Amino acid sequence: MTSSEGLPYYHRMQISRPGDALGTMQEVWEYYRADVQAVDIQIQKHVDSDVPLINQVALYILTSGGKRIRPLLLMIAARLGGYDDAAHHAVTLASAVEYIHAATLLHDDVLDEAALRRGKDPAHALWGNRATILVGDYLYTKAVCLAVQLGSIEVDSILAHACRIMAEGEALQLLHCGDLGLTDEAYLKIVECKTAALLSAACRLGGVLSGASWEEKEALGRFGRYLGIAYQVADDTLDYVADQGRLGKALGKDLSEGKITLPLLHLLRTAAAPDRQLVQTVIREGQASPAQLREILDLMQAYGSIVYAMDIARQHITIAQQNLDGFDPSPHRQALVAVAEYVVSRDH
Amino acid sequence: MTSSEGLPYYHRMQISRPGDALGTMQEVWEYYRADVQAVDIQIQKHVDSDVPLINQVALYILTSGGKRIRPLLLMIAARLGGYDDAAHHAVTLASAVEYIHAATLLHDDVLDEAALRRGKDPAHALWGNRATILVGDYLYTKAVCLAVQLGSIEVDSILAHACRIMAEGEALQLLHCGDLGLTDEAYLKIVECKTAALLSAACRLGGVLSGASWEEKEALGRFGRYLGIAYQVADDTLDYVADQGRLGKALGKDLSEGKITLPLLHLLRTAAAPDRQLVQTVIREGQASPAQLREILDLMQAYGSIVYAMDIARQHITIAQQNLDGFDPSPHRQALVAVAEYVVSRDH
Repeated sequence: MTSSEGLPYYHRMQISRPGDALGTMQEVWEYYRADVQAVDIQIQKHVDSDVPLINQVALYILTSGGKRIRPLLLMIAARLGGYDDAAHHAVTLASAVEYIHAATLLHDDVLDEAALRRGKDPAHALWGNRATILVGDYLYTKAVCLAVQLGSIEVDSILAHACRIMAEGEALQLLHCGDLGLTDEAYLKIVECKTAALLSAACRLGGVLSGASWEEKEALGRFGRYLGIAYQVADDTLDYVADQGRLGKALGKDLSEGKITLPLLHLLRTAAAPDRQLVQTVIREGQASPAQLREILDLMQAYGSIVYAMDIARQHITIAQQNLDGFDPSPHRQALVAVAEYVVSRDH
Repeated sequence: MTSSEGLPYYHRMQISRPGDALGTMQEVWEYYRADVQAVDIQIQKHVDSDVPLINQVALYILTSGGKRIRPLLLMIAARLGGYDDAAHHAVTLASAVEYIHAATLLHDDVLDEAALRRGKDPAHALWGNRATILVGDYLYTKAVCLAVQLGSIEVDSILAHACRIMAEGEALQLLHCGDLGLTDEAYLKIVECKTAALLSAACRLGGVLSGASWEEKEALGRFGRYLGIAYQVADDTLDYVADQGRLGKALGKDLSEGKITLPLLHLLRTAAAPDRQLVQTVIREGQASPAQLREILDLMQAYGSIVYAMDIARQHITIAQQNLDGFDPSPHRQALVAVAEYVVSRDH
């Protein structure tokens, strides 16, 4: 407790201390704790529908353990540009971005007939498909309402564009469901649309709010896009590594849904004919025995498919970080670098 | 064919002819044919996703015989305010409004497990729930993108607000599914949210584009809201009348979905105990025999439930039309009056 406790949170923010090291994600979370808490408060405050069902489902998905990586990136990007007094705008927009993310989770819940989301029951299993779709619609429209309040066409345009790209990405993924002929490029395009577009928008919006130059906003947008691609590639890949002990549960889920990931694509391309045929058969049949899953995971290790995919993720992180070179050194720039490292270094 | 054929369509628009009578819907369609055709072209032109599946599903729903009542109202409201050279803005916005309407139809298709939409197979039966939800999302986000292009925060705000209200309305309807204790007020609130909000927005947006005064925009918004309520009440009610010969197919569908309509509410409130019990039993069981449906339709006639509901619709149309009193007489004002009449006078 400090003597500044009574001030609005954004006056209590730490002042830039160029000597500070923000090397780990833990240090980053600590440094921006006040910002992320402020966003959390807004996220819950704006779930204010007259319809209790909406609030119930929305709060369920919004408080189910999401890491607020998108709001965090938006806040850091805003701070990077010297943002200060109008930080409440960034908080509002960060909560809007999280609403959009939650809306896609809800629609994905229905789409994928997901068995588990973040270890809890998926929303559609508790409230049914109808409520899940509608509350997704509500959260998306609420996000647009919050963004419009800021009175910036640039902000609205960035968000609307990102959302359209995300919808296209989901449709692209659906179109290539079970497509064994998918190329790495097509896979990365899907990932860029469905995941990287919103992370890119979050970073760019931070730049917009801090009055960054066009070049800076472009650089922040690219940082978010490459980070976002790496985030999804690593997410798809690390799942297999983490789950190996549990007989390939993540792999089994992806295979049964016809979701083709980068390690699978690599395996299909490089494996000898009999090995490749095993994978193809499992994907076509949409199910695999525990023994088959174990074998495919072993093949991925043997053919270097996991290493290959994580290399691709790391390459994207390097490009993401290069886009920060034009910014003066600061704890905020360090923080963005650290978030990027985190994305490819852990099981998220 | 006139000599002005080579000019952009909006220079070919008929000039206001105060002597013209625009008394019927047919005359209105004819008078605004160029406008509605221009909207139709835009509606198809902007379905330009890189993902063929999106274009396929989107065009299916957008060209499946919708009457374009929302775009028509937007164009008339814009013309009412003396709109001219920038009519392409109105056309763009009118197509965005129709996209939003189509998005709700797609999500409704999934929600209601609708057997038939406009006499054709529902989208989800042809492409599955996943594609149907995603293309709904795409159309909604595309609409926001189109609106943002106009560079008006007021436009964005009106659209975003309407969409949020619509999502709340759908959730309200879901919440009161099968609710025999629903009041008329609660029913009208649902209708106002899920149907009238977008019709109101369409009219108001026409006013915004034509540079109407605040009072005029408010009046147009109220006109659209009351017209929208009447539209849905009449839609719910006339279905029963039109379908009586087909053994109450519409009634059977509403009852099986737990959708409580105004005639049903009236019947539940006014019927003698044994008659009321029949209705209650059918709603609780979610299905009715042809004989039961026939009996309920007869009861609705006997207790005046159809007349009651249509009276409510007509009262709303009267209030809608009163909101046009402040505008100078013109074919456009006549046209809005005629559209309002049409809403309560036909089987739509």
